Amino acid sequence: KPYRIAVIPGDGIGKEVMPEGIRVIETAAKKHGVAVQFDHFDFSSYDYYEKHGQMMPDDWKAQIGGHDAIYFGAVGWPAKIADHVSLWGSLIKFRREFDQYVNLRPVRLMPGVPSPLAGRKPGDIDFWVVRENTEGEYSSVGGRMFPDTEREFVTQQTVMTRTGVDRILKFAFELAQSRPKKHLTSATKSNGISITMPYWDERVEAMAKSYPGVKWDKYHIDILTANFVLHPDWFDVVVGSNLFGDILSDLGPACTGTIGIAPSGNINPERNFPSVFEPVHGSAPDIAGQGIANPIGMIWSGAMMLEHLGEKQAAQSIVGAIERTLAERTLRTRDLGGNADTTACGKAVADMVD
Amino acid sequence: KPYRIAVIPGDGIGKEVMPEGIRVIETAAKKHGVAVQFDHFDFSSYDYYEKHGQMMPDDWKAQIGGHDAIYFGAVGWPAKIADHVSLWGSLIKFRREFDQYVNLRPVRLMPGVPSPLAGRKPGDIDFWVVRENTEGEYSSVGGRMFPDTEREFVTQQTVMTRTGVDRILKFAFELAQSRPKKHLTSATKSNGISITMPYWDERVEAMAKSYPGVKWDKYHIDILTANFVLHPDWFDVVVGSNLFGDILSDLGPACTGTIGIAPSGNINPERNFPSVFEPVHGSAPDIAGQGIANPIGMIWSGAMMLEHLGEKQAAQSIVGAIERTLAERTLRTRDLGGNADTTACGKAVADMVD
Ligand SMILES: CC(C)[C@H](C(=O)O)[C@@H](O)C(=O)O
Ligand SMILES: CC(C)[C@H](C(=O)O)[C@@H](O)C(=O)O
Repeated sequence: KPYRIAVIPGDGIGKEVMPEGIRVIETAAKKHGVAVQFDHFDFSSYDYYEKHGQMMPDDWKAQIGGHDAIYFGAVGWPAKIADHVSLWGSLIKFRREFDQYVNLRPVRLMPGVPSPLAGRKPGDIDFWVVRENTEGEYSSVGGRMFPDTEREFVTQQTVMTRTGVDRILKFAFELAQSRPKKHLTSATKSNGISITMPYWDERVEAMAKSYPGVKWDKYHIDILTANFVLHPDWFDVVVGSNLFGDILSDLGPACTGTIGIAPSGNINPERNFPSVFEPVHGSAPDIAGQGIANPIGMIWSGAMMLEHLGEKQAAQSIVGAIERTLAERTLRTRDLGGNADTTACGKAVADMVD
Repeated sequence: KPYRIAVIPGDGIGKEVMPEGIRVIETAAKKHGVAVQFDHFDFSSYDYYEKHGQMMPDDWKAQIGGHDAIYFGAVGWPAKIADHVSLWGSLIKFRREFDQYVNLRPVRLMPGVPSPLAGRKPGDIDFWVVRENTEGEYSSVGGRMFPDTEREFVTQQTVMTRTGVDRILKFAFELAQSRPKKHLTSATKSNGISITMPYWDERVEAMAKSYPGVKWDKYHIDILTANFVLHPDWFDVVVGSNLFGDILSDLGPACTGTIGIAPSGNINPERNFPSVFEPVHGSAPDIAGQGIANPIGMIWSGAMMLEHLGEKQAAQSIVGAIERTLAERTLRTRDLGGNADTTACGKAVADMVD
């Protein structure tokens, strides 16, 4: 029985990079005897919203909830539709309703991609950011009082639950334990955010007791961002709350040269629901429609998806193909200083798959 | 009548760099005909806490509230005293009770200091981070429910008031307007933090109407941290909430080579209360007691203090002396690859003051 993948290209360059992602997955699947079926969906896009007045059909959960995974391009088009409508109406809904409590992103300096950090070489930067993906600072509790007066104020609660914090920490410690360095770094800010962050620290300490083989440390988020720039070689697995993880998983890829090639997974580790795999770059309205977007983030996200499905070899063959394509420097898109278009770059990676 | 400066060395290397800060201020003051009187206080330190069971005397406000400014070393010693006791018992008390609602930090690549960012030269990175310093994410509202059970949860409110947001934005727009580029960047996260951050954006938009000469833009904090690394030359004045400003004002100095030399001001612009000037580095227990700390953050903070007091020439003479000392590369501390001690470095800067 083939894996059933729900394909959602979404907006902007999401539509342009998706075919290349599928091309490479199909190539790797064929070579490794993996059967994959792609089902295409047009919702979770501005086009759909324009026609239907909402981002997704009422029965979206029935339509894609039974799939093995969701392969997602990008959503959002700030000039046309408010972020809170487009994002909270799709991406954040998936995260919450499919309980994708792990947001996982590799931070790896790839061969052939110059780092903005002086003197860093492939191998120097190679770690994972594990982000809590359902609660924390992204809450819906809060409001405004005395509107339009001088006394006006607005509040929003950060919410951390025992369940929510413990399960992301468990995932992060497990990941650290599976890696050679066995090193976990926790992002905190307990010296300033004096209620929720000390709780986070407390749960890290408690969880660490179950992983005596893992060395762990913690940094306040301010100095941690500084250390991403000054000492990216210090890190192996970095875990953070929804907001801190969000920041670190953009800053990390930036330190490796371009967020244009970074992949991500929104993962429900128990597989009770499909997980979403998407490139870190957004819909990029400024370059959409020109066919010049870099498809590597989409392709790499496909590798993460295959890995999540248990197809390690096929996944590894794609990551290897990306590395070799980048290292050869012949076929690269404009963001990396070349002039290949999206399709040519996707084909080049597909050709490298072994 | 001399300016009356309250001197609080605090903990660790705070005590070691303070004499150098004073040395350089006294030199500049003499050369520029400025009269300064330093009054020394031993509270806001672990030593004081050990003797008295609290960080500061009950009448601390009476003791230092009438001074023209507070010159502050560093506070905190995590192994000996919990951060929330030491920091909330001194630094954060000053910020709140002296209404120091602006936290101001320069991000400037100095001559002779190698940037961790490839190919960046002095002049490429030169901007200010303006941080809201009294409310936002650093609130005291929140708590824990169902402790020690599986249902346990913790909440903490972010609080933004009209007064609090508008006054920091006004300060930032004024600063931008006074600079050649007249460019303001606002840090937001309205696509994820869906109540307080859209309010922040709304107030930025409203405030911008009063400053038609200032070009402004906004970035979500995740991509903004990425842009600090990828495009530090884009920025002129960057304004953020208490948390976002905290992050950006550590990340910014990291991009310029070392947070060991960065200064900061906790400012009450109306001068109803004294402002605090302190280096960005903390008490640094790991190198305390060895006399090797870099005093330049302390000295530069002294220049910011003189500037705040209206003594522009004296302030500028100190910044120039720092630049020349760093550019000559002869007398530098270990963090910058030299082997001068704290005192030698302080004397070198003092000698350069003109
Ligand atoms: C020590 C800590 C509470 C403080 C803060 O977060 O405000 C520090 O990081 C700073 O930036 O001055
Ligand atoms: C689009 C936005 C809501 C989202 C987030 O902050 O979670 C994005 O930045 C991401 O990291 O996937």
